[in-house]
Amino acid sequence: VRVELINTGSELLLGQVNNTHLPWLAQELFTLGLRLQRQVTVPDGPSIREAIVEAQSRADLIIITGGLGPTSDDLTRDYVAALLGRPLVLHDDIWQKIQARFRARGWETPAMTRVQAMVPTGARVLANNYGTAPGLLLEENEQIYVLLPGPPRELKPMWTEQVLPWLREHRPVAPLHQKLWHVLGVGESRVQELVEEPLRQLGALEIGYCARPGEVDLRVISPDAALLERAAMLVKEKLAHLITSEGTASLETTVIRLALEKKRLIATAESCTGGLVAHRLTNVPGSSTVFHYGWVTYANEAKGQELGVPPEVINQEGAVSEACVRAMAQGALGQSRAHVAIAVSGIAGPSGGTAEKPVGTCWLALADAHEVITAVHRLSSDRETFKFMASQQALNLLRQWLEKQ
Amino acid sequence: VRVELINTGSELLLGQVNNTHLPWLAQELFTLGLRLQRQVTVPDGPSIREAIVEAQSRADLIIITGGLGPTSDDLTRDYVAALLGRPLVLHDDIWQKIQARFRARGWETPAMTRVQAMVPTGARVLANNYGTAPGLLLEENEQIYVLLPGPPRELKPMWTEQVLPWLREHRPVAPLHQKLWHVLGVGESRVQELVEEPLRQLGALEIGYCARPGEVDLRVISPDAALLERAAMLVKEKLAHLITSEGTASLETTVIRLALEKKRLIATAESCTGGLVAHRLTNVPGSSTVFHYGWVTYANEAKGQELGVPPEVINQEGAVSEACVRAMAQGALGQSRAHVAIAVSGIAGPSGGTAEKPVGTCWLALADAHEVITAVHRLSSDRETFKFMASQQALNLLRQWLEKQ
Repeated sequence: VRVELINTGSELLLGQVNNTHLPWLAQELFTLGLRLQRQVTVPDGPSIREAIVEAQSRADLIIITGGLGPTSDDLTRDYVAALLGRPLVLHDDIWQKIQARFRARGWETPAMTRVQAMVPTGARVLANNYGTAPGLLLEENEQIYVLLPGPPRELKPMWTEQVLPWLREHRPVAPLHQKLWHVLGVGESRVQELVEEPLRQLGALEIGYCARPGEVDLRVISPDAALLERAAMLVKEKLAHLITSEGTASLETTVIRLALEKKRLIATAESCTGGLVAHRLTNVPGSSTVFHYGWVTYANEAKGQELGVPPEVINQEGAVSEACVRAMAQGALGQSRAHVAIAVSGIAGPSGGTAEKPVGTCWLALADAHEVITAVHRLSSDRETFKFMASQQALNLLRQWLEKQ
Repeated sequence: VRVELINTGSELLLGQVNNTHLPWLAQELFTLGLRLQRQVTVPDGPSIREAIVEAQSRADLIIITGGLGPTSDDLTRDYVAALLGRPLVLHDDIWQKIQARFRARGWETPAMTRVQAMVPTGARVLANNYGTAPGLLLEENEQIYVLLPGPPRELKPMWTEQVLPWLREHRPVAPLHQKLWHVLGVGESRVQELVEEPLRQLGALEIGYCARPGEVDLRVISPDAALLERAAMLVKEKLAHLITSEGTASLETTVIRLALEKKRLIATAESCTGGLVAHRLTNVPGSSTVFHYGWVTYANEAKGQELGVPPEVINQEGAVSEACVRAMAQGALGQSRAHVAIAVSGIAGPSGGTAEKPVGTCWLALADAHEVITAVHRLSSDRETFKFMASQQALNLLRQWLEKQ
C-alpha cells in the first residue's frame, strides 16, 4: 500500500506555521504497518488539483489536509469533487450541527459556513466534534481519498476515532516493527562506527541515522520482530549509557516515568533555560506527582533571594559558574524538600559572552541529600538551540541519577 | 522565478523530526521577493532522484536539504552529480578542514567522513563552519541547484552568509510585500466577515486566513507597497484590539519589546503552564532586562510557601480558582518587586477534571501596584495545546497591560 500526504495551505509555504501533521500522521500510519512514501505541500489554489492528479498516478491511499474551512481560500473539497466526478450536495445534518455549534458559543452563524456542509456524492462523512468542517473519505478505482481539516485538534481525533478504525477494517496490512534510540554524547559517524557492521551481520535491517541538536537518533526497522529484538539487544550493548531514551518516549517522559517508579521528587532551578526544563517536565501527564517546585531565577538578585546563592559567589565567580549552579541546586533542594534538584546557568546569547565565558557556555549542577555533581558544556551559540541543548543536558543528568536509585 | 524545495530524510516521513527547514527557508525566500511554490519530502534512497527530476521540469531554483552527511543513507550529492553529469572529485581543502574539526574535539577522523569532501565538477562549494558537510551550488541550463546540509544550525548560517548574497547578486527580483496579523478572541470566519469585503474594495490583494490554537492569522500580500499600507490601516481599524502581534513578531516578542520600551519589570507565577510562559518570554533576546523572577508552583504547598497563597484559599476554593490566581499574582508581585505579575492556574489534563471544573478550565490573574485583573477561559482539552493556549492568554493580558502604560 503506497501512501502519500498532501498538505495544503499557503501559510505553510510562506513559513508562517510548522507542518505538525506530517510527523503525527507518519507515526499513526506506521502503527498500521503503513509507510508514508511522499509528502508534498502546495499553496491554496490550482496547485492542489495538480498535486492530487500526481498522487493519483502513484498512490493507493491519498491523505489531504486543509482547505475544508469556510473562507474563500478553502478549495480542497471542490477540487476532489470535480476530479472524481462527484457533485456536491448539501448534507442537512452537518448544516444543523454547524449552526448548533455557533449557537452554543452565543455567536450568529456566518452564511459562508454553509459551504462546509456540502458533501461529494457517495462520500463517507467524518464527523468533526471539535470544529465546523467535517472530514471526507472517498473510494474510487481501488484508491482511497481521506480529506481532513487543517487544525490539529480537529484532525487528530477525527483520524484516531474514525479513519484509523476504517483503515484497520478495510485495508489490513502486515505490521512493520521499528526501534528508535536517542543518543547523547557522540556524533553521528561514531554511532554508525559502533553499530552498523554488527547490525548488518545480524540480517536484513533498515538502519537510519539522524543528527539533531542535543542528540543523534538511531533507527532500525524490520518486518521480522524476532530479528529486531536481537538488533535491540546488540544496540543496547554497544551504546549502553549513551542512550537517553527509546522510541517515541522523549527524554522528559523517561525522566518522569523513572521518578514515578522510584518515588522521587524533582525540583528545578533555572537561569539560562528560563523555564524550559520545567515546561518539558510538565508536558508529561502525571508530572504533578513528582514535580512540585520550580524557580526561574533569571536575575542575580533572584538567585540570592529565592535560592540563597551568596552574593560573594556571584561577585567573585559570576552567575555562570560552578559555584553558582552548586548553590542554586542546593538552595532548590532545601526549599523544595525534593529528593533531587537540577540547576542550570549559562550564556544563551546573542550578547553577554566574554573571551573566558563565550556565548554557549553552560554550567549544570545536580544536588541530592548526599552530594552535588556539576558539569560544564559548550553548547550552540543560537539562543533557542542553546536553551534546548541545555535542557537536554539537565534532563539527562536527572535521568542518570534516577536510574541509579 | 519558480522555487521548489526538496527535503530528504526518512526520519521526516517516519515522523521522528519536524521539518523546520520549510518555514525558515520560506521566510528567507520571501525577503528576496521569491515565493516557494512547492515543497516535497522524500525518504533517503532513489525517491530523491525522482523528486529532483520532477522539480527540474518546473522550477528555476531547486533547493535540496539533507543527505550530505557521512553515513550510508546520505545520497543527495551522488544523485545530483549523476543527474547533471558532473563526476565527483576530492576537494583537498575540505578534507583538511574536516580532519581539523575532528582533531579539535580530540576525536579520530572516521574514514567514512571522506565522502563529504567529494565535490561535483564545477560546483561552488559552500563552506560549513558549524559541521563537516559542505553545501553545494550548481548552475545548469539556467537552473540553479542549492544543496544544504540537514542540521539547522549548519544550514541556517550557510544560507544567510553564502546563498543569500549569491542569489541577491545573480537573480535579483522585484520584492513582494506582506503583512501578517495574529488575532485572538474571534474565529476565522468572523475575521473574514470583518475585513474581506473592505479589503477587496481597496484593490488586488492576496488575502489568506489560518486558524491556529490560540489565534487566527490574517495575511495580506501585494507587490504594491502603497496599496498594502492602505490595507494595513484598514485591518487595524477593523480588528483593533483583537490583534495581538504583527508579522513574524511573536506575542512574546511584542511583550518583551513593550516592556523594554516602557521600562516595566514582569514576573510570572505558573501552575498549569509549568514554566511555558517564562520559557516563551526568555526565548526573546534582551528579556533578562525586564524579566527577573519566575515561579513554577506546581504543587499547592509550593503556592503557599513561595507565593504566600493562604491554605484556606486552596482548601475552600481549590488551586484552580479566582482567589488562588489572585493570591499567586499578588505574591509574585511582592516577592519580585516587579511592576506587573501574571499568574496562571488551570487543569491541563488528561486527568484532574470535574463536572464543575472540567479539563481545559484556566484561571488567570494580572496584578500591578493598583489592582488585580482576573479572567477565566475554557481552553483545549489536549495537554500541550492547553498549555500553549493558556500561555497565549497570559501573554496577551501582559501585552494589553503594557500597551496602557
